[in-house]
Amino acid sequence: MIDAIAADNEKRAAALRTDYEALGENLSRWGIDIDAVKAKVANYGVAVPSWGVGTGGTRFARFPGLGEPRDIFDKMEDCAVIHRLTGATPSVSLHIPWDKADPASLKAKAEETGLAFDAMNSNTFQDQPGQAQSYKFGSLSHTDAATRQQAVEHNIECIEIGGAIGSKALTVWVGDGSNFPGQTNFTRQFERYLDAMRKVYAALPDDWRIFTEHKMYEPAFYSTVVQDWGTNYLIATELGPKAFCLVDLGHHAPNVNIEMIVARLIQFGKLGGFHFNDSKYGDDDLDTGSIDPYRLFLVFNELVDAETRKAPGFEPAHMLDQSHNVTDPIESLMVSAMEVQRAYAQALLVDRRALEGYQAENDALMASTALKQAFRTDVEPVLAMARLEKGAAVNPVATFRSSGYRAKVSEDRPVVSGAGGGIV
Amino acid sequence: MIDAIAADNEKRAAALRTDYEALGENLSRWGIDIDAVKAKVANYGVAVPSWGVGTGGTRFARFPGLGEPRDIFDKMEDCAVIHRLTGATPSVSLHIPWDKADPASLKAKAEETGLAFDAMNSNTFQDQPGQAQSYKFGSLSHTDAATRQQAVEHNIECIEIGGAIGSKALTVWVGDGSNFPGQTNFTRQFERYLDAMRKVYAALPDDWRIFTEHKMYEPAFYSTVVQDWGTNYLIATELGPKAFCLVDLGHHAPNVNIEMIVARLIQFGKLGGFHFNDSKYGDDDLDTGSIDPYRLFLVFNELVDAETRKAPGFEPAHMLDQSHNVTDPIESLMVSAMEVQRAYAQALLVDRRALEGYQAENDALMASTALKQAFRTDVEPVLAMARLEKGAAVNPVATFRSSGYRAKVSEDRPVVSGAGGGIV
Amino acid sequence: MIDAIAADNEKRAAALRTDYEALGENLSRWGIDIDAVKAKVANYGVAVPSWGVGTGGTRFARFPGLGEPRDIFDKMEDCAVIHRLTGATPSVSLHIPWDKADPASLKAKAEETGLAFDAMNSNTFQDQPGQAQSYKFGSLSHTDAATRQQAVEHNIECIEIGGAIGSKALTVWVGDGSNFPGQTNFTRQFERYLDAMRKVYAALPDDWRIFTEHKMYEPAFYSTVVQDWGTNYLIATELGPKAFCLVDLGHHAPNVNIEMIVARLIQFGKLGGFHFNDSKYGDDDLDTGSIDPYRLFLVFNELVDAETRKAPGFEPAHMLDQSHNVTDPIESLMVSAMEVQRAYAQALLVDRRALEGYQAENDALMASTALKQAFRTDVEPVLAMARLEKGAAVNPVATFRSSGYRAKVSEDRPVVSGAGGGIV
Amino acid sequence: MIDAIAADNEKRAAALRTDYEALGENLSRWGIDIDAVKAKVANYGVAVPSWGVGTGGTRFARFPGLGEPRDIFDKMEDCAVIHRLTGATPSVSLHIPWDKADPASLKAKAEETGLAFDAMNSNTFQDQPGQAQSYKFGSLSHTDAATRQQAVEHNIECIEIGGAIGSKALTVWVGDGSNFPGQTNFTRQFERYLDAMRKVYAALPDDWRIFTEHKMYEPAFYSTVVQDWGTNYLIATELGPKAFCLVDLGHHAPNVNIEMIVARLIQFGKLGGFHFNDSKYGDDDLDTGSIDPYRLFLVFNELVDAETRKAPGFEPAHMLDQSHNVTDPIESLMVSAMEVQRAYAQALLVDRRALEGYQAENDALMASTALKQAFRTDVEPVLAMARLEKGAAVNPVATFRSSGYRAKVSEDRPVVSGAGGGIV
Repeated sequence: MIDAIAADNEKRAAALRTDYEALGENLSRWGIDIDAVKAKVANYGVAVPSWGVGTGGTRFARFPGLGEPRDIFDKMEDCAVIHRLTGATPSVSLHIPWDKADPASLKAKAEETGLAFDAMNSNTFQDQPGQAQSYKFGSLSHTDAATRQQAVEHNIECIEIGGAIGSKALTVWVGDGSNFPGQTNFTRQFERYLDAMRKVYAALPDDWRIFTEHKMYEPAFYSTVVQDWGTNYLIATELGPKAFCLVDLGHHAPNVNIEMIVARLIQFGKLGGFHFNDSKYGDDDLDTGSIDPYRLFLVFNELVDAETRKAPGFEPAHMLDQSHNVTDPIESLMVSAMEVQRAYAQALLVDRRALEGYQAENDALMASTALKQAFRTDVEPVLAMARLEKGAAVNPVATFRSSGYRAKVSEDRPVVSGAGGGIV
Repeated sequence: MIDAIAADNEKRAAALRTDYEALGENLSRWGIDIDAVKAKVANYGVAVPSWGVGTGGTRFARFPGLGEPRDIFDKMEDCAVIHRLTGATPSVSLHIPWDKADPASLKAKAEETGLAFDAMNSNTFQDQPGQAQSYKFGSLSHTDAATRQQAVEHNIECIEIGGAIGSKALTVWVGDGSNFPGQTNFTRQFERYLDAMRKVYAALPDDWRIFTEHKMYEPAFYSTVVQDWGTNYLIATELGPKAFCLVDLGHHAPNVNIEMIVARLIQFGKLGGFHFNDSKYGDDDLDTGSIDPYRLFLVFNELVDAETRKAPGFEPAHMLDQSHNVTDPIESLMVSAMEVQRAYAQALLVDRRALEGYQAENDALMASTALKQAFRTDVEPVLAMARLEKGAAVNPVATFRSSGYRAKVSEDRPVVSGAGGGIV
Repeated sequence: MIDAIAADNEKRAAALRTDYEALGENLSRWGIDIDAVKAKVANYGVAVPSWGVGTGGTRFARFPGLGEPRDIFDKMEDCAVIHRLTGATPSVSLHIPWDKADPASLKAKAEETGLAFDAMNSNTFQDQPGQAQSYKFGSLSHTDAATRQQAVEHNIECIEIGGAIGSKALTVWVGDGSNFPGQTNFTRQFERYLDAMRKVYAALPDDWRIFTEHKMYEPAFYSTVVQDWGTNYLIATELGPKAFCLVDLGHHAPNVNIEMIVARLIQFGKLGGFHFNDSKYGDDDLDTGSIDPYRLFLVFNELVDAETRKAPGFEPAHMLDQSHNVTDPIESLMVSAMEVQRAYAQALLVDRRALEGYQAENDALMASTALKQAFRTDVEPVLAMARLEKGAAVNPVATFRSSGYRAKVSEDRPVVSGAGGGIV
Repeated sequence: MIDAIAADNEKRAAALRTDYEALGENLSRWGIDIDAVKAKVANYGVAVPSWGVGTGGTRFARFPGLGEPRDIFDKMEDCAVIHRLTGATPSVSLHIPWDKADPASLKAKAEETGLAFDAMNSNTFQDQPGQAQSYKFGSLSHTDAATRQQAVEHNIECIEIGGAIGSKALTVWVGDGSNFPGQTNFTRQFERYLDAMRKVYAALPDDWRIFTEHKMYEPAFYSTVVQDWGTNYLIATELGPKAFCLVDLGHHAPNVNIEMIVARLIQFGKLGGFHFNDSKYGDDDLDTGSIDPYRLFLVFNELVDAETRKAPGFEPAHMLDQSHNVTDPIESLMVSAMEVQRAYAQALLVDRRALEGYQAENDALMASTALKQAFRTDVEPVLAMARLEKGAAVNPVATFRSSGYRAKVSEDRPVVSGAGGGIV
């Protein structure tokens, strides 16, 4: 891979330097130091979900790709490639039990690949072979105490595994809800959920955070116990100071102003972090920035605003969470990591002092223009130069393709038979 | 009107008694005492908004009807007709400055018409002639302190007027928001809003409540300062124990599960009340129950559930809030008041003990059926008998039409010229 | 089952007769002959999809139930139970290749169970073991001619199988679309689709119809080749007089007025039929009538209107299409079939002459009331009496539960291991 | 204004030349000739709606600005300023009766201002003083023949006025629909609409086109007679070869893929043109490109694709249609015209040959990247250089502000009193 990077970068370096200089000159007219922006971008990282390097699917079908990772060690190999080429994804987020393995081996692999472990993810939305209680009708909010207890213990196990490998956070997403009006009593279900979560929270080490994730619907189709940020905020306040809300961009009602939710959670000290992706219809889990890049920018505009004014308790975790159904997952994750960086870089270009002035004067047109001008600036040279300087690829996709990595791992990793699906 | 009622009721009483008996026999098989249900329905009342008796419109046009009320006294005459015929709308909710008048005259009119005064409504979404500061760019959250202060004082004035006429609540809805990304800083705008609202709250008498109303959008089309129940809940907790959230059924994102929001607000002691209406697309302000009557029922299912288990602090205010663009407003408000009663009566029929059992067993099908069976019961005989027994009309619309009321008031009330609109 | 029916019916018959008479008397006051309505309801049937008797799931998980059918013959047994108990589902719709079997055996099973075969359903949204070309990137609209040809041949095979067992229609639903802007050229993709469909159409026997089904999204999340009724109508007109549009209630954008689409397709002679279900968020595939029963009624209001005025070419096919994730599929399908009947019965009660008068006079309030009054009439006695008289169950769910059917088949049908899913 | 342009341009020309050269060099690496792109942009024009230069509002309120145009002649003055500064809006679209005036005077004013007349717009969604029949319950589809005839005659009058001033198209938008299920019979209403439109169509000169505009909802809130592109397409085919569909970007259901609708209408020869604007929730009429600029780009991607392959009959009309509630309308229209140009310029940068290859290979990632790369290119230097070279302003907003135009016209144009609204 190192050779592939060197070879491709060499072809592109000269043009990149030209573009970088031209952009630098342009930005300097606005009083912006391009190198300072580049430095911030270079320091920025977004976590990759271990499951993201496999091919996703829908309830109708899954169409596997070549060379799919067989286990967490293969997944970490793939994640390392992503970071090697982009320099933007220094950590990986594990999902238990999918990624369950000997902690020592996990740590060794992390050392080998240069990756850190981000938040742990528990799974109580599926039944595992041999599991005593079924999650068919819920997990942490189930009517049956034994089922809730099983879910609590699973979450605590995730904390323990995470503790052994250096993670500092647990992300809890549950699919609990209902498919029929009347199926569940909203109030009692939420009481049960809170009771169970208090037990999980009690097991949290002092230096850990717990992130709860809201989602409007799916897999439950009439109601979901943590359906929106309002309920998520209630959870975080009920649990305590280590509890925070996680925002997945695809988990909201149509038309909802997500950047405003982000602002509210920052203001009240409860923004835990993000699952980045994009969507057009529902929780489509499409590639970040592929459908509405301006929305992504507006989210980062809030983040940079909070960073700039040093909002108390502001320290969100950043992670990608996407389903790659028709692309090579490594390529999609690389492009998405760069899209997140791009939005961050663009948000850094906003002239916040001027913006404040326009806002104070209710000069809506110029306020809008201040954001649009930053957004329409092509910051690719900034991103690419940051990559070049840290030994990553100027053009990660081209380099990846020329490297032959996918073909190589396909030799070892068998084609997955039984394409699955048909869960209509 | 009394004669019209008597004449029409006489024609319908016999059939009504037959239907009431048949339904009573049917319900008794389910262990339900029809007379007990009737008594609850008879005691139920929903407030009418003073502005509801005028013809509404859109930004494109308003097409006035005949005999539109000229002032609050005409409006109270119309509201009295609604209550006389339905027995379901004992109070009227005033809007300041639209309904500003000498308090003594208002009280006298209330005595004359037998109506009480429900919550006061302030107006900071329009500029009034001679007003010092414009609300073009906001009111309670405006960047300018003088504008915020003007809005605060207006709200305090509404409390004072309300105090003089026996109201016990203030409803605050603001249109503040923005039409462009960047136009406003979400965080500072909300801080300003909260600061201003604290001043209003400070002026609230001890036995008053303040209701804040969230709305996703309109008149602001990119962001709204109180955009959803999450923000509304933050407001209620920031302000204090007399502050509650008001739920307008039409103010949510597409597909949102409103009954669940109602349940959450009840659970956390912050449900203030309702603005009932119906909608298919946005804040359509259509007649209550005209588009999705089952949704209305599901909201009342939560209310009866809370009533049954005596949820602490549960005492929501009920009001209609609709725009009558193509119907006689008196007729629409009568039908809507009865639709609200209908949903209440149906929710009273739910076998809650059985439902609890189904929920405990995760018997989704029977839980759903328990609700559907109550909903599909035709409770019209219960409602009509309650009306008959209190001297209201068995069939309010037919009686109203035969009464000649609209023609009579049209003689005194001039046709409104200048159909207005064209605010495209 | 016959014994179970007889036993349960005996307990319920007396009360049913009382309710039926009371309702009959009430309806007679409106000039409606309850027996005539009952006769129409008794003649009404809706097809059951073979795949509906299995437990559904989501991309996250599937939680199987007990006694799930192992093959099409088990499925037909279950379908027969549904029809036996409700008298409302005389036919079953097959899905190829899921239900592929020797036609003679299928016909024998149909004779044994008393079921007919409704429309055939092809499947080009999944890859089958050993399949030459993959549908990962599309089927009938694929860029590759060989893949399109394979999909065409599969559809023709479905026609052939259908011909051998007495079906008279082919339903074509494809998931073809794209997940990224730019992934496909909309125009060329649709040209390819039309070309392929013309070949399928050419293989259609003279007395067959072909139904194409539109869907807004899923499994494709940026664009879908047959995304809405507009495109569906274009297909039907391009193909010819045997081509019609199929409306699945769950396949539309949020807030869309589906009953209006139904009216338009009837008006232009292209309504092929329905896939009934209900939904709150997307293509939730929830039980018909469980979320918004008034919407279902409004669809049937259009159908009865067309039936009444004998709209040319009006002969829609009716089928359920749902995913039963948390209920016993047999129970859900029975309740749903009855919900469809209920909506039909209610629509039959609308006083169409009066309604026409209100419409002519723009009396929106009374027009609305005319529909609401029919909708709120509890027609359960009509449905139950129709069942009683044809030897089906007065209360199908109670009878089914008392019959012990599910326990009995669970002895023969093994628990499905490998709960599947994890297609995140 | 000429002086203001010259003064401001002088300050900006040098930097612009630097940026233009840098971009030119960058594009040349991709094989793109920047001057060719600039030439196309320079030739591109979008029409301005006469009503757009006034301040808009909502049903709640309208907050007028300073110096609002008093009549069509003032409006044309303002439109001329927009074109003078941007060089991008050579024509104005009139609305009758709002802009009714002596045709000779209109032509003289057009000559004086250098503007042409785009499509005529009729108005049957409001009642005018003295009008014989009211449009309260519809216009072209009204149940009453005299009302339909009045609406037909009004449209024919619009054609006549347009003929006298050199327009070549009529745009018909009606608000006809219903607010209650049952209020109207969908089928008969559409029959009446088609009948009336056939009379309008018959009056169309040979070299004219007629554009019908669909809209999901508002001012009708349950159903709208031309609710979507499917119905719009039916109209265009029923009427004949001079009838085409107009797409207003804000008139669709949530989440709908508008660029795909555009592609379908092009493919079937019925795309008439656009009303450009942007929106987040409904028909918000926000400034074009202010909310989702990538969506606007994707629409233009379809237009350039059609232009490139010379799609038969492809000749869409381009117009802005926005409501400026919180900005100076002249500024908003200038920025919006440039946003349309920007989307066009970006779409011109797409490497269509490469894109075709990616599509043929199902290389979704690279296909997406091909679009994103064009979109993220900052084409401002192209637009600004085109303006500079035609004597327009490099920075139209800055120049407009420095020109003092608004202050000057405010002296002659009185402040509008009676802020209107209150149509709740």
